[in-house]
Amino acid sequence: MTDQTIRVGVIGASGLAGGELIRLILGHPDLTLTYLGGSSSAGRRPSELHPGLRQDLGLVIEAVDVDAIARRCDVVLLSTPAPVSAELAEQLVDRVQAVVDLSGAFRIRSAELHDKWYPKVKRSPELVDRAVYGVPELIGDELVGASLISLPGCYATAITLGLAPLVLSLGLNLDRVIVDGKSGSSGGGVHLRTADLHPYRAGAIAPYAPGGHRHGAEVADFLSRRKPGTIRSVSMSAHGVAIVRGLLVTCYVLTEDEVDHRTLSRAYLRFYKGHKFVRVRRPDETLIPVPDPQATHGSNYCDVTAVHDADGDRIVVLAALDNLVKGAAGQALQVINKRYELPEDTGLTMQPVMPS
Amino acid sequence: MTDQTIRVGVIGASGLAGGELIRLILGHPDLTLTYLGGSSSAGRRPSELHPGLRQDLGLVIEAVDVDAIARRCDVVLLSTPAPVSAELAEQLVDRVQAVVDLSGAFRIRSAELHDKWYPKVKRSPELVDRAVYGVPELIGDELVGASLISLPGCYATAITLGLAPLVLSLGLNLDRVIVDGKSGSSGGGVHLRTADLHPYRAGAIAPYAPGGHRHGAEVADFLSRRKPGTIRSVSMSAHGVAIVRGLLVTCYVLTEDEVDHRTLSRAYLRFYKGHKFVRVRRPDETLIPVPDPQATHGSNYCDVTAVHDADGDRIVVLAALDNLVKGAAGQALQVINKRYELPEDTGLTMQPVMPS
Amino acid sequence: MTDQTIRVGVIGASGLAGGELIRLILGHPDLTLTYLGGSSSAGRRPSELHPGLRQDLGLVIEAVDVDAIARRCDVVLLSTPAPVSAELAEQLVDRVQAVVDLSGAFRIRSAELHDKWYPKVKRSPELVDRAVYGVPELIGDELVGASLISLPGCYATAITLGLAPLVLSLGLNLDRVIVDGKSGSSGGGVHLRTADLHPYRAGAIAPYAPGGHRHGAEVADFLSRRKPGTIRSVSMSAHGVAIVRGLLVTCYVLTEDEVDHRTLSRAYLRFYKGHKFVRVRRPDETLIPVPDPQATHGSNYCDVTAVHDADGDRIVVLAALDNLVKGAAGQALQVINKRYELPEDTGLTMQPVMPS
Amino acid sequence: MTDQTIRVGVIGASGLAGGELIRLILGHPDLTLTYLGGSSSAGRRPSELHPGLRQDLGLVIEAVDVDAIARRCDVVLLSTPAPVSAELAEQLVDRVQAVVDLSGAFRIRSAELHDKWYPKVKRSPELVDRAVYGVPELIGDELVGASLISLPGCYATAITLGLAPLVLSLGLNLDRVIVDGKSGSSGGGVHLRTADLHPYRAGAIAPYAPGGHRHGAEVADFLSRRKPGTIRSVSMSAHGVAIVRGLLVTCYVLTEDEVDHRTLSRAYLRFYKGHKFVRVRRPDETLIPVPDPQATHGSNYCDVTAVHDADGDRIVVLAALDNLVKGAAGQALQVINKRYELPEDTGLTMQPVMPS
Repeated sequence: MTDQTIRVGVIGASGLAGGELIRLILGHPDLTLTYLGGSSSAGRRPSELHPGLRQDLGLVIEAVDVDAIARRCDVVLLSTPAPVSAELAEQLVDRVQAVVDLSGAFRIRSAELHDKWYPKVKRSPELVDRAVYGVPELIGDELVGASLISLPGCYATAITLGLAPLVLSLGLNLDRVIVDGKSGSSGGGVHLRTADLHPYRAGAIAPYAPGGHRHGAEVADFLSRRKPGTIRSVSMSAHGVAIVRGLLVTCYVLTEDEVDHRTLSRAYLRFYKGHKFVRVRRPDETLIPVPDPQATHGSNYCDVTAVHDADGDRIVVLAALDNLVKGAAGQALQVINKRYELPEDTGLTMQPVMPS
Repeated sequence: MTDQTIRVGVIGASGLAGGELIRLILGHPDLTLTYLGGSSSAGRRPSELHPGLRQDLGLVIEAVDVDAIARRCDVVLLSTPAPVSAELAEQLVDRVQAVVDLSGAFRIRSAELHDKWYPKVKRSPELVDRAVYGVPELIGDELVGASLISLPGCYATAITLGLAPLVLSLGLNLDRVIVDGKSGSSGGGVHLRTADLHPYRAGAIAPYAPGGHRHGAEVADFLSRRKPGTIRSVSMSAHGVAIVRGLLVTCYVLTEDEVDHRTLSRAYLRFYKGHKFVRVRRPDETLIPVPDPQATHGSNYCDVTAVHDADGDRIVVLAALDNLVKGAAGQALQVINKRYELPEDTGLTMQPVMPS
Repeated sequence: MTDQTIRVGVIGASGLAGGELIRLILGHPDLTLTYLGGSSSAGRRPSELHPGLRQDLGLVIEAVDVDAIARRCDVVLLSTPAPVSAELAEQLVDRVQAVVDLSGAFRIRSAELHDKWYPKVKRSPELVDRAVYGVPELIGDELVGASLISLPGCYATAITLGLAPLVLSLGLNLDRVIVDGKSGSSGGGVHLRTADLHPYRAGAIAPYAPGGHRHGAEVADFLSRRKPGTIRSVSMSAHGVAIVRGLLVTCYVLTEDEVDHRTLSRAYLRFYKGHKFVRVRRPDETLIPVPDPQATHGSNYCDVTAVHDADGDRIVVLAALDNLVKGAAGQALQVINKRYELPEDTGLTMQPVMPS
Repeated sequence: MTDQTIRVGVIGASGLAGGELIRLILGHPDLTLTYLGGSSSAGRRPSELHPGLRQDLGLVIEAVDVDAIARRCDVVLLSTPAPVSAELAEQLVDRVQAVVDLSGAFRIRSAELHDKWYPKVKRSPELVDRAVYGVPELIGDELVGASLISLPGCYATAITLGLAPLVLSLGLNLDRVIVDGKSGSSGGGVHLRTADLHPYRAGAIAPYAPGGHRHGAEVADFLSRRKPGTIRSVSMSAHGVAIVRGLLVTCYVLTEDEVDHRTLSRAYLRFYKGHKFVRVRRPDETLIPVPDPQATHGSNYCDVTAVHDADGDRIVVLAALDNLVKGAAGQALQVINKRYELPEDTGLTMQPVMPS
C-alpha cells in the first residue's frame, strides 16, 4: 500500500487505448499522470486528439525520451505497437518500478508460438521470464511488486475468463475449443483504411482472420501453462460488427468429459465468487439477452455465461466486455492496483453507461 | 413458360417479409399482386405499414378468406407463423397452382426432428411429402410445377449454400459442423419487445439460442437426405448484431478428410458455376473483407467463401446474404421463376445497394 | 454542507432516467439510495430492468407509498410523467427536505404557456411559486435549501445554456430564435411503439413536432423572466437520429444588434468561466467537429459554440450534451449538490466515455 | 426517343457516386456502360472498389483520355471534383452528345455567388450559359437535347423541391429561409480523415459548415432566377448524422404572406401532381414519422412535407431523399431520360429498400 501518489506515464497517448488510459487515470485517486509520449503526435495537447478530454492536464505529448520517463514516472504504460513495446520495455524495466505493456510483445511465453504469431517481434528471453501475464483474476499474488506486466489481448481476456472455470476448476479435458469473436470498431485502433470508414463499417459484419487469430494461441499458451495437458488448441476467427465499443466471444467447447448443467453453473459461480469484475450471468436474467457487451459499456466488468448445447455434447461459453476498459485500460489500472496492493477496484467503480 | 401474368397473393402482408415481397413483386414483369391478407392489419392500406411503398396498389389488406384467395390467385405466398402456414397450406394447396411457404412448417422433413424443434406445428404427412425444399441452386428440376414449396430459413439458406460443395461435390465426411450465426434486427421480424427497441439493440451483440438454433437441424435434415451419411449434425448458435438487414454465418467444419486449398477453392467455383446468385469470393478481392452481407444489401446474392484454418485441420466456411431477399422474398420469387420455367433472375436483377 | 449521508429515493426507477439516476447515485459519496418506486415494475429488482446495474442494492422496486417515502428519504427524485409528478410533488414537498422533479410539470412558470403545452397537467399555484428552475449555472444561490426543484428538459438545458450569454451577458435583443433539435433514441424514453423498434429507428432521421416543441416555450419562459423584453419566442422543431445517447441543438438567432466575432467569443468564455460543466469550444479544436454530443457521452458536460453566419446577420449557437446525464440524472445530482452546498461536481467527475 | 442504346461513360468511377452510377446504369435498358475513367484507380476493375458490384463488366478503370471518351461515349457523366469537371466539360462538350456534371462547377450561375463559394473553380462563361441546371421536375423541356447538364447538389435538390411550391406556385415572398441539413456519411464521399472513421462517426451528430453551406446559395441562385424577387437568401448549416445513406433538410421559412393550412397542402399536392418521383406526404400517414430518408433508401424518390408552426408565423418544409440516388446518380439517369425523351422513370422504377 502506498500513501503517496504513483506517477504514471502513458506512451502511445494518441491512440484509443491511450485516450482511455488518460480517462481512467484522471479518475484514480492514487495515480498522477506525469508523462505522455507519442511519435507523430508529439507536441500536441491531449485534448486535440481526444475530443472528450478537454481539461488542461498540464501536459503535452512528448517525443519518447527514456531518460525523462525514468525520471518522471514510477509506472509506464506502453500502448505501442509490439515491436516498439519490446524495445521500450527492455530500456525501461530496470529504471522504473513497473512497466505495463498493452501490446502483444510478451503475451505468448512459448517461443515457438510467439514466433509463429509475432514473427517480427524480437524480445529478450530474460524479459519473457520476468513478464507476468496480467489476468488479475487468475494469477493470485504474482502481480505484487511485478516489474513487467503483459496485459492480455482484449479477446484473450474474455476467452481466458470464460474458459478458466472449465479448466482450472472443473478440470475438464477440452478436446477442441473453437472461438468466434465479434468486436466493435474501436478494437482495431484508429487506422486510415477505407474499410474502416463509416460508410463501409456501419453496415458491416466483417470477417477477419477467419483462418486463425493470435489471441486464440495466447489463451492456449496461458491456460496450458496453468494446467498442462487439458487444452490442446484454441482456434479462433474474428468478426468486426457495427458497434464502436465492446466485444463478445462465443466459445464452442468440445469435450468428452461429462458435466451436468447444475455442476457447470455452480462451478462458474464459485470460481468467480469474490472477483467483483467478473459477473456470472444467466441468459435471461435481465431485459436483454446476456452476456452482451453493451451491459459493460465504459466499465471494467466482464460478463460470463456457460450453457449446454441442446444435443448435450457441446458447452457454449459466452464472455463480453468493453474492449477499451476490461480489455485494455481498465485492466491496466486493475493490475497496477494489485501491483501496489491497493484495493482492486480503486478508480474502477464506475457502473456501465447503458444504454449507449 | 407462361405468356400471361401470374396472379400472386401475399398472406401476412403487414410484416417485414410481407413488405419485401410486395416490393419485389412490383418489380417483376410477370407477376401481378392480386391479394393481400392479414389479421390485425386487415382493412389497412399497405402504404400505412410499409413506409417506402407509397404508391396506390389498388389493394387493401383483407382478412384471410380462402375462397377469395383461391379465386383471385395462381400463387399464394404464406408469410405467416408456422402453425398458420400449416393450416393454410392444407386448405389452399389443391385450389391454387402453387403455395410458397416462408415459415418453418414444412422445412424439416424428418418427423422426429420437426417435432423436436417445432413441437406446436402439426402438419399432414401427405403435405410433407409433397413439399419441395426450395433452395433453387441445389434441387434441380423439382421445382417445375411444384404445388407446395417450403422456403428455407434465412440462416439455413446461407449455411446450406455454404456447405453444399463440401458435401455434394467433394463428398467430405463432416464429423462436426458448428455454425455461428450473426443477423441484423430485421431477421427477427417486428415484435414489440423491449429488447428490440432501438436503445437496447443499437449497441448490442445479443446472443440468442446459444444452446442450439433450429436452422441447424433444418440444414442437417436436408443435406443428409441429399447425401446420406456425410453429415452428423449441425450445431448452431445465433447472435443479433447492430445492423438492420443482412446475416453472416461462420461455419466451423471439422473433418478428418484431407483437402488442399486449391481443391477446396476449385470445388466451390465449379459447383456454383452458372448459378448467378451465388458468388464465390476471395476474402481480399475487394476493399472490404468479404463475404460481408452489406455487399448483398437489397439484392438476391449469397456470397460464399471457404478457407482453411492456419493449423490445417479445420475448414471455415462463410456465407452472407440479405435475410429479406435471398433469405426470404427474393428466394420466393426465384423459386416461382423456376416453378414456371421463367429465367431464374426475372425481377431479381437489381444490384446491391451499397454502401448502406 | 452535510457530514452525513443524504438519503435519496427515486420514483420511476424502471425508466431510462431512473436507471441513470441509480448509476450516478451509486457513484456519489454523500448520497445513499433508500427507496425505489415504480408502478408496473413494483416487486422487481433493479438489475432485471437495468442490465448494466447488476449488483445487489438491497432494494426492490416498490409501489409508490408516500408515507414510506417520507420516512425513508431526505430527497425524492421524480422521474415520472408530468401529471404524476404534479401530484406526488404536492404530497411530498413538505414531508421531505427536497423534491427534484425531472418531468415538465413545473418547468414553465407562465400559466398561459403551461396550459398551452401541458393541457393535462394541473398543479397548485403555490407549488409553482416555490419551484426553482434548476439550471445550476444560471440561477446562483436559489438552489440552496430549495424544497422543490424543477429540472429543465434535456433540449431546454442545451438551448438555455447556449443562448444565455447572448441574453444575459451581451444583452442582445433576439428578434427570432429558431431551434433545430436532434436527439438519440434514449431521449424519448422506452415505449413499445413500432417506430421505436431497431429496424425502423436505426436508419432514421425522424422529424417530430415539426411545427413546435414545448422545450422552446420552456426556454423562452425562463430567459424572458431572467431578462424581460430581450427574447420574443423560441420556435423549435425536433428530430430523432440514429444514436442512442446525446443531443445537439442548433439555434439560429436573428438579431439586428451588431456583435463582432471577437466580442461574441469572449462573452461566451467569460460567461462560463468557473462553470466547469459548460465547455466553450471552437469548432475545429479537436479531431472531430465540435460540439458533438459524443464528446460528452456518459458525462455531465454541456459543450457550447457560437459562430457567425457567413453573411453576417445570423448567429448560430450549437450546444451538445448527454441527454441522460446533463440533460437529466447528472443535472439532478448537480442541483442536489448545490441544494446541500456540496462541491458542485461531487459524484460527477467522470470523463466522457469516447468513442462510444 | 432512341431505338438504339446510349453509350455512357463515367469519369470518377471509383467514388461512391461513381459506384452508384454503375449500379443504376446496369439496370437501365437503354444505356450501355462503355467507359470508366479514374485517376489513382486507373487499371483496377470496378469490383475491386465497389464490393457489391462483382459481375464482370468487361471494363477496367482507365486513365482519363478525352479522345477515347469522345470516341466511345454518347453521354459522359462527370463524378469528379469541381475544378476537374470544369476542365473536362470544356474539352468534351462539343465532342459528345451530352455532358452531365455531378460537381458544383456549373451549379451557381451568378458569377459573384459562384466565386464566393467556389473560389478555385474557373469556368468559361460560354459554358455557364449553356449549362442547364438539372432539377427535372422544375425545368420543363430545357433538358431535351441539352449538351451540358449541371446536376444540383444533394442537399440543393431536396431544398429546391421543398421550396418550389411556395415560390413558384403560391408566389410567397420568403423574407428569410433557414435550412438545417442532416446527412448520412456517404454524403461526404470517401476521404481518409480520422473524423470519418467508424469509431468517430458512429456516435456523432457532427456540425459542419455551421456558418453557411454553399448548397443554400445554389438554391437561392436558381429560385431567384425562376421567379425574381421572391427569395432573398437561403442560409444553410449542415450536420453529419450516424447513418450512411440519406439526407433530410428542415427548411424554416419566414414570410409575412398569409397562407392557411389547406391552401398550403393543396399547393404542394397540385404542384407535384404527375411528378412521380416527388411524394407529398402527411407526417403521420405511415408507421414512422415522415418524411424520413429511410423511406426512400435506394430509390429515386424525394419525399416532401410542409407544415405550419404552432404559432402560425413560420412554415416548416421537410424534404428527404437518398443522397446517392435522387441526390446524385438517380437524378443523373432521370435527366438523361429527359434529355433523350425516354419515359422519365426508365431504369428508375425500383422501390425503396426498407427497412435498411
